Amino acid sequence: MVILGIDPGYAIVGYGVIRAQRGRYQPLEHGAVVTKAGEDFNRRLEVIYDSLTKVMNQWKPEAAAIEKLYFQNNQKTAIGVAEARGVILLAAQKAGIEVFEYTPLQVKMAVTGYGQALKPQVMEMTRRLLCLKEMPKPDDTADALAMAICHGQAAGSALRRNLLKRTDCFK
Amino acid sequence: MVILGIDPGYAIVGYGVIRAQRGRYQPLEHGAVVTKAGEDFNRRLEVIYDSLTKVMNQWKPEAAAIEKLYFQNNQKTAIGVAEARGVILLAAQKAGIEVFEYTPLQVKMAVTGYGQALKPQVMEMTRRLLCLKEMPKPDDTADALAMAICHGQAAGSALRRNLLKRTDCFK
Repeated sequence: MVILGIDPGYAIVGYGVIRAQRGRYQPLEHGAVVTKAGEDFNRRLEVIYDSLTKVMNQWKPEAAAIEKLYFQNNQKTAIGVAEARGVILLAAQKAGIEVFEYTPLQVKMAVTGYGQALKPQVMEMTRRLLCLKEMPKPDDTADALAMAICHGQAAGSALRRNLLKRTDCFK
Repeated sequence: MVILGIDPGYAIVGYGVIRAQRGRYQPLEHGAVVTKAGEDFNRRLEVIYDSLTKVMNQWKPEAAAIEKLYFQNNQKTAIGVAEARGVILLAAQKAGIEVFEYTPLQVKMAVTGYGQALKPQVMEMTRRLLCLKEMPKPDDTADALAMAICHGQAAGSALRRNLLKRTDCFK
């Protein structure tokens, strides 16, 4: 299955498209939508919407994985991030893509198997799982790829659970 | 000038279209986009986006006025509201409409001339300024109309200020 991972934001939106097959991951495309700080905010939202719509239409992923949002420190930034996240969710909806949300802890667990893993460890494991020579930059892109892997793991487990359940029925 | 006032949210989005001319206000259309609680959240965002796009294309307002967002109490609701606000801003951007933000205090001041006015007073003044027999329901619609009037007042003052400035130049 093709999965689109997204690290939401309004200045930088990281994205990564991967193919997940039997626990193996192949990177298809990754990058970041960068919007200019001086630009009108609504125009920045439009750039994000249009750019992600393009990626979605090109790769037609079966699922999108995006970080679950919590507000903590900077409320002004947080509102902007949530507004950008809204247009990302709309883009997925318009493209007919189901969206799954994961917490940073779930991503860590999925990628490294260890909930207290540090960011460099998560990034290194992401690089290895995707057989990439170097970790993609910016970090937002790497985070988006880790997010996509996380959904691959979750979907894989769900698949295995369903298969087990189905086998159970035959007992 | 035609102004679209919007009270953002994800369950109910109030909107009101008015014509502002020399300090007088004529209501053109008002209502609320209501999305179902049981519905998929991304589908709700889509309903909001499509409904407001329709209103914008029908009335082609020169400006949209929307409440400035602050986060205080319920963070979970606040994230949803900000996400919905993001798609509203995107709809305005796609329709080529400039968006202006006002705080609840600015709206109170514009409509009643008194910053400590209570909600019923703001609503009653909104009703009178628009020559409506009854206050529109739900409250979100009334709030959106007050927001539109607020921009009408602000734009009117700006116009007068500019005219004064221009006269100054001729001295």
